Amino acid sequence: MGGVILPDLGAEILVPVCAIIGIVFSLIQWLFVSKVKLVPGATSFLFTEYQYVGIFMVAFAILIFLFLGSVEGFSTKTQPCTYDPLKTCKPALATAVFSTVSFLLGAFTSVVSGFLGMKIATYANARTTLEARKGVGKAFITAFRSGAVMGFLLAANGLLVLFIAINLFKLYYGDDWAGLFEAITGYGLGGSSMALFGRVGGGIYTKAADVGADLVGKLERNIPEDDPRNPAVIADNVGDNVGDIAGMGSDLFGSYAESSCAALVVASISSFGINHELTPMLYPLIISSVGILVCLLTTLFATDFFEIKAVREIEPALKKQLIISTVLMTVGIAIVSWIALPSSFTIFNFGTQKVVKSWQLFLCVAVGLWAGLIIGFVTEYYTSNAYSPVQDVADSCRTGAATNVIFGLALGYKSVIIPIFAIAVSIFVSFSFAAMYGIAVAALGMLSTIATGLAIDAYGPISDNAGGIAEMAGMSHRIRERTDALDAAGNTTAAIGKGFAIGSAALVSLALFGAFVSRASISTVDVLTPKVFIGLIVGAMLPYWFSAMTMKSVGSAALKMVEEVRRQFNSIPGLMEGTTKPDYATCVKISTDASIKEMIPPGALVMLTPLIVGIFFGVETLSGVLAGSLVSGVQIAISASNTGGAWDNAKKYIEAGASEHARALGPKGSDAHKAAVIGDTIGDPLKDTSGPSLNILIKLMAVESLVFAPFFATHGGLLFKIF
Amino acid sequence: MGGVILPDLGAEILVPVCAIIGIVFSLIQWLFVSKVKLVPGATSFLFTEYQYVGIFMVAFAILIFLFLGSVEGFSTKTQPCTYDPLKTCKPALATAVFSTVSFLLGAFTSVVSGFLGMKIATYANARTTLEARKGVGKAFITAFRSGAVMGFLLAANGLLVLFIAINLFKLYYGDDWAGLFEAITGYGLGGSSMALFGRVGGGIYTKAADVGADLVGKLERNIPEDDPRNPAVIADNVGDNVGDIAGMGSDLFGSYAESSCAALVVASISSFGINHELTPMLYPLIISSVGILVCLLTTLFATDFFEIKAVREIEPALKKQLIISTVLMTVGIAIVSWIALPSSFTIFNFGTQKVVKSWQLFLCVAVGLWAGLIIGFVTEYYTSNAYSPVQDVADSCRTGAATNVIFGLALGYKSVIIPIFAIAVSIFVSFSFAAMYGIAVAALGMLSTIATGLAIDAYGPISDNAGGIAEMAGMSHRIRERTDALDAAGNTTAAIGKGFAIGSAALVSLALFGAFVSRASISTVDVLTPKVFIGLIVGAMLPYWFSAMTMKSVGSAALKMVEEVRRQFNSIPGLMEGTTKPDYATCVKISTDASIKEMIPPGALVMLTPLIVGIFFGVETLSGVLAGSLVSGVQIAISASNTGGAWDNAKKYIEAGASEHARALGPKGSDAHKAAVIGDTIGDPLKDTSGPSLNILIKLMAVESLVFAPFFATHGGLLFKIF
Repeated sequence: MGGVILPDLGAEILVPVCAIIGIVFSLIQWLFVSKVKLVPGATSFLFTEYQYVGIFMVAFAILIFLFLGSVEGFSTKTQPCTYDPLKTCKPALATAVFSTVSFLLGAFTSVVSGFLGMKIATYANARTTLEARKGVGKAFITAFRSGAVMGFLLAANGLLVLFIAINLFKLYYGDDWAGLFEAITGYGLGGSSMALFGRVGGGIYTKAADVGADLVGKLERNIPEDDPRNPAVIADNVGDNVGDIAGMGSDLFGSYAESSCAALVVASISSFGINHELTPMLYPLIISSVGILVCLLTTLFATDFFEIKAVREIEPALKKQLIISTVLMTVGIAIVSWIALPSSFTIFNFGTQKVVKSWQLFLCVAVGLWAGLIIGFVTEYYTSNAYSPVQDVADSCRTGAATNVIFGLALGYKSVIIPIFAIAVSIFVSFSFAAMYGIAVAALGMLSTIATGLAIDAYGPISDNAGGIAEMAGMSHRIRERTDALDAAGNTTAAIGKGFAIGSAALVSLALFGAFVSRASISTVDVLTPKVFIGLIVGAMLPYWFSAMTMKSVGSAALKMVEEVRRQFNSIPGLMEGTTKPDYATCVKISTDASIKEMIPPGALVMLTPLIVGIFFGVETLSGVLAGSLVSGVQIAISASNTGGAWDNAKKYIEAGASEHARALGPKGSDAHKAAVIGDTIGDPLKDTSGPSLNILIKLMAVESLVFAPFFATHGGLLFKIF
Repeated sequence: MGGVILPDLGAEILVPVCAIIGIVFSLIQWLFVSKVKLVPGATSFLFTEYQYVGIFMVAFAILIFLFLGSVEGFSTKTQPCTYDPLKTCKPALATAVFSTVSFLLGAFTSVVSGFLGMKIATYANARTTLEARKGVGKAFITAFRSGAVMGFLLAANGLLVLFIAINLFKLYYGDDWAGLFEAITGYGLGGSSMALFGRVGGGIYTKAADVGADLVGKLERNIPEDDPRNPAVIADNVGDNVGDIAGMGSDLFGSYAESSCAALVVASISSFGINHELTPMLYPLIISSVGILVCLLTTLFATDFFEIKAVREIEPALKKQLIISTVLMTVGIAIVSWIALPSSFTIFNFGTQKVVKSWQLFLCVAVGLWAGLIIGFVTEYYTSNAYSPVQDVADSCRTGAATNVIFGLALGYKSVIIPIFAIAVSIFVSFSFAAMYGIAVAALGMLSTIATGLAIDAYGPISDNAGGIAEMAGMSHRIRERTDALDAAGNTTAAIGKGFAIGSAALVSLALFGAFVSRASISTVDVLTPKVFIGLIVGAMLPYWFSAMTMKSVGSAALKMVEEVRRQFNSIPGLMEGTTKPDYATCVKISTDASIKEMIPPGALVMLTPLIVGIFFGVETLSGVLAGSLVSGVQIAISASNTGGAWDNAKKYIEAGASEHARALGPKGSDAHKAAVIGDTIGDPLKDTSGPSLNILIKLMAVESLVFAPFFATHGGLLFKIF
């Protein structure tokens, strides 16, 4: 085995330095986006949400402690190591304590990331509107910079907290790295549980408001989107921030934390961990550190090196961001793999040690990175109105809403094909080269450009709300046109962001799944055993169950919203004329109450399933459930988010009327446009509630299984033990 | 091992006698439904379809012969047996020849079943309309009897041909039962390939016409459904027959043939086959034989023992059919298991022999039977407008089409939960007791009441068309109301039929999958190997790819239809006034051309995937693909068919106005009703094209893999062999 070029101290310095650079960079970006007024409501909703979620977190933390502590009967004595029974390791009780701590740490970091991102976004909205007066280029830079603040803050924050936690835990664990990194997985669980509630609660909040506002405002009263006369307009704007910004932030933070944890836990029982080679052990974190630097450079291409002058340059500029970051990052990965890895080492592979070369690990990371780019491009192709798929959907509006919906669903289904092949190839390459560690670092590769990904993703809702503010402030038509153009590109980038989130979720879940299987001491997951197969088919059903809940929640909350908005239009005199102000607060309350109440059942489904299956049916059936929900959920998630994105942009295509064809379908208010609005409304819960929540469903069940694996392996499968 | 009560000669007589009784019974039912005029077009479409499909069948038959013949290089010498290398068996070339013959036999039987069923249905349509003048009870009996003709003919026909084929093949194979029943699996493949084209081609045909007719007729021109002024009305009525009757008939025939073949092939390498015990060997066929007798008795309850007097008695009567047949059949299975099985025997279980008791096998069949009943009831609950789910969907039409679609999709997703648990329990029980043989007989248990299932299923489109004829013939409003009531129940029963088709398809595929794995000599299908996992995730994607194709096909064909119908309304003077006849033939031609052209890509996807994966990636990846498409496809199939059924009945609920709530949403032409019509139109391709075709996708890929297993095991996996 060759030596490592980068000394341990170098790794210990590189990671926090990069993280701090990221944070400083995001602060600089923030300085550019100077302070403007805050949209009311978003903060208060998040605080309400955090109160409820806080109770859950404490309860679940206690559960983690009790379950994991009970593995060895709360004994404080050292025990034989799991993977090397000849050595002694820290007691199970320590794992219970540290897992609980890292769970709370992950949850807290996720909350902070989401909250800060949202703060920044709400600061940026009005600023973007003001810049739009000066031209589309200025507005673009402001919106994009604001997204970058969030992206860098989140990536750097997640990295720094994880790094500090590892170093603090090491004070207790010392040389027991397997125990240390097993306890660290709680960090991923905490991050993802928060993301679940952020995505589901935020998704229900935003879409109840959006659907409710559109149904009455646009379809019945014929007033424009975001018109200040619409009582649900504030709730809608608040929702964009809590759902798309805070939710997406928590989601990608969760993916990032989980893939790091999955990689670390496997590395700790591979040669890196066994031989206590610190630098290669921290390889996953070093990749992320270099990712921050690469994204920093990439951002400058959008904001400083080139200038956007016309609307049609926006999408290419965003696309260029993806390409530049991927190309630069490939070089970055090559360097890291060269200096931070020995030329040859072994990786734990379900009970055996597999010899891996450093260039093979480079390929694992790179294949994940490039798969992400492919997913991004395919998503763009299917959701941007510059290409034929969305134009076909728009065209089908000629014959009404029904054909629009049929074409949109078909588009979403079709958009799954290439991303799945891309994911399959990454899995095959990374799995073949380096087993579960390969998959985990492939996921990290896909997420290494997370700062850029989040920047272009957060850009979408910021532009959307900038438009909302322009409309509400009664600004000129030209400014609204500019923000609309920014927003149309934003819909596409939001879809791209979701594509990344889903693709990385698939890889992360598989890596966690593999780590779970290793920890639960099962050597094969044979589909052709009844225990596994029933898990597989029930697991494949869970995303449907979950989607049924979230869609219905949005539908019911939207119905309530519609009734309230109708009531206000009918009972408040002078509202339609614009002489009286609507009662915004009641609509905000409807959204808040609905989301808090309705996020509990889907949340419970996700959080309880691994526990119930693990305790009563055991680890084999749980393996089946994880595999089933993964392969089924990823398809629904991709198709739902692309269908929704396509409908939204088909509507915008008709509204913008930028081509002969588009003008033939329009203008606003035509039959085809009305059909397009119906499609857009249906797509709202698909693309912003059900679809993106499914990522978290598959990741969260996997990481939860991993955290509880010691308990399931010892006490699980009660039902089969009884019969 | 205990002796068998039923002597071999008894089994040899019982099966054909029951089959012939079934055929005679269906002829008697036919006599009751005497001959009326034939709707033009259906036969001519089927002949066109069969021409194209015929070419495919011949080509594929040649492929089977070449692939299987090449396994041993077309040698005519006997060879060591696959499962017992000490004995000698017939050459691989014989398997090639007989597999090809049984493939063609299966395809032919499927064509005949579908064609006869459709003939009967078209004969019955007008007769039902005429009987509706006398009252709803008379009309019900006629429609139901016509369905029964089809059900019995199909079940008996499938059984008889299979029985004869086995006996003829035995003349050559003699004691080589493993070879004999391996060759017989071609029968299932033939049946299912035909069903694929029937379902997909028929589904595109019928829904292009239906959607096209509704979009212009109902939404633009405000004329009633099935109005003779609508140029697409004939195509629509023809479509109901070719899609729902012929397609469904072929589908269930395929399931039946495949589960019999899967059971027989496993039995032939278990103690029954090894010891040449004929009666227990024919246990699967005896179960089906007794099923025919039980269904015969059950039918009398609907047509002779009780009489339908009012509309509200229709659904309970149909429901009673399900319960009666299930209860009687449970007794039947118990008797068969008692007299036709030794008290203890062994079953092949992936390389080992597993000891099974006769009562355990009884439980396997019974659990499948009762799971079918549960699936039926759950489907009824979610698609009948007597219960709250459909009423909630109808209620959501108050706020427009968008909420209707959101609620409908959520309903479909939710309706998956209990059926999946029912399937999972059946799989677990039958798998644990008797491995793959258990699953195969569980599928047969679910299908043992196929004659009743098909009768109540075919009843739906017959009633639908009876209504169409009443409208076209300008009969009184009261008659149309009666046929509408029959049809509303028919929508529910059609959904129940689809539920059975999907549930049995899931079990059948798993049984075939198991047989394939046995034949391909792999002992485990480990999810945690890269080859299997990429198969799993790509397999789970295939149903989406397939659905994208079929939905888009329906959408495009419907667009063409809309343009043609609009053109006729605009250019034919006197059409709206009813003084001139429309040009029905052009619309029929659009549907015919579209369905023939558009069924090729999805057909190719299904037929080529196992071949490509098997040849290039090998049997492990193919196993993954089969498992993935099974667990993912079954969910989409159930949700799509229930969503569509619910939308259809939500619309009917508003139209019928039978309750305070329904009247508040109606009448026809109200905004809520228009929203409901949009939902209904979207549901058409979901419930009648994509959804039901997916059953065939999962079954067909499994049976094709089984037939080609000897080839893949010898020459497959080229790509991995090269690298």
